[in-house]
Amino acid sequence: MKEDFLACLERIRPYARYTPIMESGQIENFLGNDLYFKCENFQRAGAFKMRGAANAILQLTDDQRAKGVITHSSGNFAQALALAAKYLGVKCYIVMPKDAPDVKRNAVIAYGGEIMDCIATLESRERICNQVIEDTGATFIHASNNKDVIMGQGTAAMELLEAYPDLDVIITPVGGGGLIAGTALAAKAFGKETIEVIGGEPLEADDAYRSLMSGQIECNETTDTIADGLRTQLGDITFPIIKDHVSKIIRVRENEIISSMRLIWERMKIVVEPSSAVALAVLIKERPSFAGKKVGIILSGGNVDLNNLPFE
Amino acid sequence: MKEDFLACLERIRPYARYTPIMESGQIENFLGNDLYFKCENFQRAGAFKMRGAANAILQLTDDQRAKGVITHSSGNFAQALALAAKYLGVKCYIVMPKDAPDVKRNAVIAYGGEIMDCIATLESRERICNQVIEDTGATFIHASNNKDVIMGQGTAAMELLEAYPDLDVIITPVGGGGLIAGTALAAKAFGKETIEVIGGEPLEADDAYRSLMSGQIECNETTDTIADGLRTQLGDITFPIIKDHVSKIIRVRENEIISSMRLIWERMKIVVEPSSAVALAVLIKERPSFAGKKVGIILSGGNVDLNNLPFE
Repeated sequence: MKEDFLACLERIRPYARYTPIMESGQIENFLGNDLYFKCENFQRAGAFKMRGAANAILQLTDDQRAKGVITHSSGNFAQALALAAKYLGVKCYIVMPKDAPDVKRNAVIAYGGEIMDCIATLESRERICNQVIEDTGATFIHASNNKDVIMGQGTAAMELLEAYPDLDVIITPVGGGGLIAGTALAAKAFGKETIEVIGGEPLEADDAYRSLMSGQIECNETTDTIADGLRTQLGDITFPIIKDHVSKIIRVRENEIISSMRLIWERMKIVVEPSSAVALAVLIKERPSFAGKKVGIILSGGNVDLNNLPFE
Repeated sequence: MKEDFLACLERIRPYARYTPIMESGQIENFLGNDLYFKCENFQRAGAFKMRGAANAILQLTDDQRAKGVITHSSGNFAQALALAAKYLGVKCYIVMPKDAPDVKRNAVIAYGGEIMDCIATLESRERICNQVIEDTGATFIHASNNKDVIMGQGTAAMELLEAYPDLDVIITPVGGGGLIAGTALAAKAFGKETIEVIGGEPLEADDAYRSLMSGQIECNETTDTIADGLRTQLGDITFPIIKDHVSKIIRVRENEIISSMRLIWERMKIVVEPSSAVALAVLIKERPSFAGKKVGIILSGGNVDLNNLPFE
């Protein structure tokens, strides 16, 4: 696994930045932990997704690359796949609901992606997706449930552990599970034996928490969360990895996400999206259980709509 | 001058961070310049003011330090002086209007500063200030019009020029003139012979522009600008330095400040205050005159009220 990660990181290095690792004396004093923030908000296309997107395209054959790639996403993975494809000279189709915000559509277009409109139902999305694949031979790349994507996402934790090999815990947000699955695999490969990987999830989209409880993939009953990157559910590739290697998932409330986001913006002077703040919210909520621990937090991204911020 | 700066930087190093220098491929592509952002928003207390505040206190005698320091400010210098004084075990009095926002008062209190209420008139401020000085023997430290403060502020440009000695231009915002005066002196000491220092000023508080035009210190006729750090006017120490060493002051409109601020937040994923965005606004406004130049921009600070942002 170690060699696989080393090869993966080398492969994606020209396309995905080594992001800074920040500390915050003020937040450390407040929490009493040694805290290291891996700042994927500074990643190309504004989120860790670039790592997995680049790795997935780089693992395709020349013939596959010639036919292009396709995904359905209206979030960070769409932008990341479009940008990675642009770097690599690969055609990229993004299936996105017609009513997705202009800011998201424009970002994909700016990176050279071709948007294929669907309506906001599973049926429409899959039909359009399959149609494009039939017409073009493009390869479908899932935003999280894909082993090359998972390996790519794991490189953020790998870089964090190269700098701080003695972390006791890494906390990441959980949406489709690609980031936490990759983090868990990287922690096993590069962390100390007792390292734990913990997931943070909005109470309003707690499929991963319930999946670990029941032992099978559960759907979200609600997705009414500000953490728009975390509304998706686990898949058949991410779930087994999470089941085996993630210690636990901790759920946080919307107000806890927003106040953690505010803390990061105000104290660290960086722009992170609500999904990123979920990991810090977990640490704040369960503070006593992290006492004395050296904690890594993956700040997953920084793509926010400045016209629509939750502060008041 | 070079030796003075080297000694100054060594003196303040334990109290004022070496801040990161960031680049932004997206903003560079958009403008066609090589651009280096000196990120004083990551400075302690959230702004470059920490540099000058620390230097000024460190230049006091033991006897002076024992009696404390005092300034009048409701902005970043108040926080910086309070924090620097706290680090150095010096008592700090801040004269501030009673109706200053709670967020500003609380920041000073959190850093251990003692707030002395005045009302928002020059007469009240000076009376309270003089009263405290008479009672305690505290030393008055002006936020900008003080040579030790100016030298301290110049160390930001010094660090920028150590990393990029061949900059053609450095742009800073202009309020009281401490930052730009220090920057101009540092550029003379550490920059190449042809380096220019240019100031950015809100059209709504354009005293420095008019002072350079008339050859004498002019007052602000209006201060109705979102760049709240730039509402003050030049002083008898800052003005001569600016007159001798600053190429020009360029004025920008409020909407130009806000759109530059948005550009920095969205593209660079960092939180900067409106005053910081003025320098980039200048570059955008006068783009052709900077063609082909290697430009340094001092992002002065990151203290914003998240409850009151200008985006919509």
